[in-house]
Amino acid sequence: MPASPIRKLTPFADKAKLEGKKVYHLNIGQPDIETPEGMLNAIKNIDFKVWAYTPSEGTLSYRKKLTEYYNKLGYNITPDNIIVTTGGSEAITIAMMACLDAGDEVIIPEPFYANYNGFASQSDIVVKPILSYIENGFALPPISEFEKLITDKTKAIIICNPNNPTGYLYSQDELDALKVLALKYDLYIFSDEAYREFCYDGRTFISPMHLDGLDENVIVMDTVSKRYSACGARLGCLITKNKAVLTAGLKFAQARLSAGMVEQIAGEAAVDTPDSYFEAVNKEYTSRRDTLVTALNKIDGVYCPNPGGAFYVVAQLPIDNADKFCQWMLETFSYNNQTVMMAPATGFYSSPGAGLNEVRMAYVLNNNDLQSAMVCLEEALKVYPGRTVSSAQLAVGK
Amino acid sequence: MPASPIRKLTPFADKAKLEGKKVYHLNIGQPDIETPEGMLNAIKNIDFKVWAYTPSEGTLSYRKKLTEYYNKLGYNITPDNIIVTTGGSEAITIAMMACLDAGDEVIIPEPFYANYNGFASQSDIVVKPILSYIENGFALPPISEFEKLITDKTKAIIICNPNNPTGYLYSQDELDALKVLALKYDLYIFSDEAYREFCYDGRTFISPMHLDGLDENVIVMDTVSKRYSACGARLGCLITKNKAVLTAGLKFAQARLSAGMVEQIAGEAAVDTPDSYFEAVNKEYTSRRDTLVTALNKIDGVYCPNPGGAFYVVAQLPIDNADKFCQWMLETFSYNNQTVMMAPATGFYSSPGAGLNEVRMAYVLNNNDLQSAMVCLEEALKVYPGRTVSSAQLAVGK
Repeated sequence: MPASPIRKLTPFADKAKLEGKKVYHLNIGQPDIETPEGMLNAIKNIDFKVWAYTPSEGTLSYRKKLTEYYNKLGYNITPDNIIVTTGGSEAITIAMMACLDAGDEVIIPEPFYANYNGFASQSDIVVKPILSYIENGFALPPISEFEKLITDKTKAIIICNPNNPTGYLYSQDELDALKVLALKYDLYIFSDEAYREFCYDGRTFISPMHLDGLDENVIVMDTVSKRYSACGARLGCLITKNKAVLTAGLKFAQARLSAGMVEQIAGEAAVDTPDSYFEAVNKEYTSRRDTLVTALNKIDGVYCPNPGGAFYVVAQLPIDNADKFCQWMLETFSYNNQTVMMAPATGFYSSPGAGLNEVRMAYVLNNNDLQSAMVCLEEALKVYPGRTVSSAQLAVGK
Repeated sequence: MPASPIRKLTPFADKAKLEGKKVYHLNIGQPDIETPEGMLNAIKNIDFKVWAYTPSEGTLSYRKKLTEYYNKLGYNITPDNIIVTTGGSEAITIAMMACLDAGDEVIIPEPFYANYNGFASQSDIVVKPILSYIENGFALPPISEFEKLITDKTKAIIICNPNNPTGYLYSQDELDALKVLALKYDLYIFSDEAYREFCYDGRTFISPMHLDGLDENVIVMDTVSKRYSACGARLGCLITKNKAVLTAGLKFAQARLSAGMVEQIAGEAAVDTPDSYFEAVNKEYTSRRDTLVTALNKIDGVYCPNPGGAFYVVAQLPIDNADKFCQWMLETFSYNNQTVMMAPATGFYSSPGAGLNEVRMAYVLNNNDLQSAMVCLEEALKVYPGRTVSSAQLAVGK
């Protein structure tokens, strides 16, 4: 199992900090946004005496409340369509284990959330990557490219929407095309919707749950981590209308007995988070995205698409090797005693050699810090020994 | 994956309750004991603003505090020997994934905690059961029996001590014998110590961690679930001095990002739980065990060994089929409008046909309820259509 692309440089960051450098952490999706008060108050107000197991599928009370949340989005589900999980991570592993056997294949547009690889390898599931390209903002690859990869072993497609790491928000047309494909080849669509709340410029989030005729195919993998800035809650869920998947998923849920009890209490309270919270968060992230994307595209040789959602960008830099560059930033470089930690995009690609001149940045710092980090990056690129001419820069005629 | 033996009869219990029957739940290890106040207060007193990821291996603060706890037990570890997990369940899955590849074999004395099967099958690990017998209280099978099962694929042995489901507490001699075996064949010893605090009659718990020369072999899989009656916390840990296992285990921990943050805060407070808490709990469980074992052995045709630890017994009943009997208890039988829910022992055996006349009972109810449940069981056995003469009863000359 490969090291996590967002953490493998941590020892170098630790060393840089020991040496007194300020490190801007753009490598990890840990938001600095405050968790909703109602959610934290629910924790403070617990009144049980025995911290007991909950039902393996989650408490009925929480699943009812979640149903309220999802049905406002138009998912048209009942509490029976939900299995509460320990974070989105477990929703992904349970979905994979319930729907795929060892040796089965899952197609994932790349770059993709690197941990899909880890979860797949735990169950000997084969990941078939399909390249998306920075030139069109990492849009869904043409359906014909998917069809080239489909074999008897292909059981599922994973989409992450809005996308981690690219921030790309899938369009109605793209989802409609995936629907035709899923029905034609009888494939599951695993829909990772961790960033559903983070759509910008008035754009609308569309889930495969909104499409007719896909009840047997769609499995939503969700988490409260990003929605409520509650990554440490480890609370997620799997949603599907496919009864066989629910039955199989429940067996895996039973094997690990229960998700967290306090988290489900907090998660229930979180559903009542006022709209004003999300409006403020959305405004803040839009502003940060604008700061980051604008600053990046002003740097000589850098290209960064303007993504429609999530809180990540993948930028192309004029560098020979993102792994080397990110390590060099921590080990060797500093500007005014500051440096930037980014995630090399190579870790988000499965195809060898892809993403060598790309990095992922999470805009989880405030605008001032983002500005300072970009000044730092600009200075670094001026002196980095492995600087090249960006091919994307040429390709997009920038 | 088979249905959980402690939950597969739940629909029948639900139906019985709907029909107005009182059901004594002896099927599941959810204690009714209160969680320590200090642990619950730690939850109520949280003062963070962002519910953030913790390091994948757990917070340093919690691992330091845990080290204090384990070193009092004589484990002689540092915080670096610990990976904090989401419940004991995840400690088991990470231990298996870090130490065994698909197709590798693990030997487990049976009856054993049924979820080992589920966790092993998730990673295509082969479980090789080795029978232990009610006649000697489910003592460790002779080492020669283990040796018969060992192949090139054998990588580990799992012991659960004190044992779930039998309550058996392994002796110094038994652990010494396992040590010789592990060193001779270079095997891991996975030591599931969930019930460490529950040893009765002044008997001492011995861990493989206490044995010299096993640093590279021992992996402890632990949880706070039973120790602090905090099953719903989903907080456990994996402990080993084997650096390669720690490195591999950390990669799996990184794939799922983090264990729960609130739980680690509560877990840290829990280490300061006063001895008086455990003394009171121990006294209560000893009394319940005595109530249950005495009542069981008074019933015509029933045999139950007197276990040294945990809060389970496996009893042999004069019945044809434990699955049928337990279902019949819920569906058909009632005495004074009451019945008993037990876990058929078949689910804790991997060998076909084993445990057909045995049930597991958890003494997680108070003495009065246990007495009433045993009266119920006695009446049930008088009229159960599949009653037989107990072979164990004959074998032990009772």
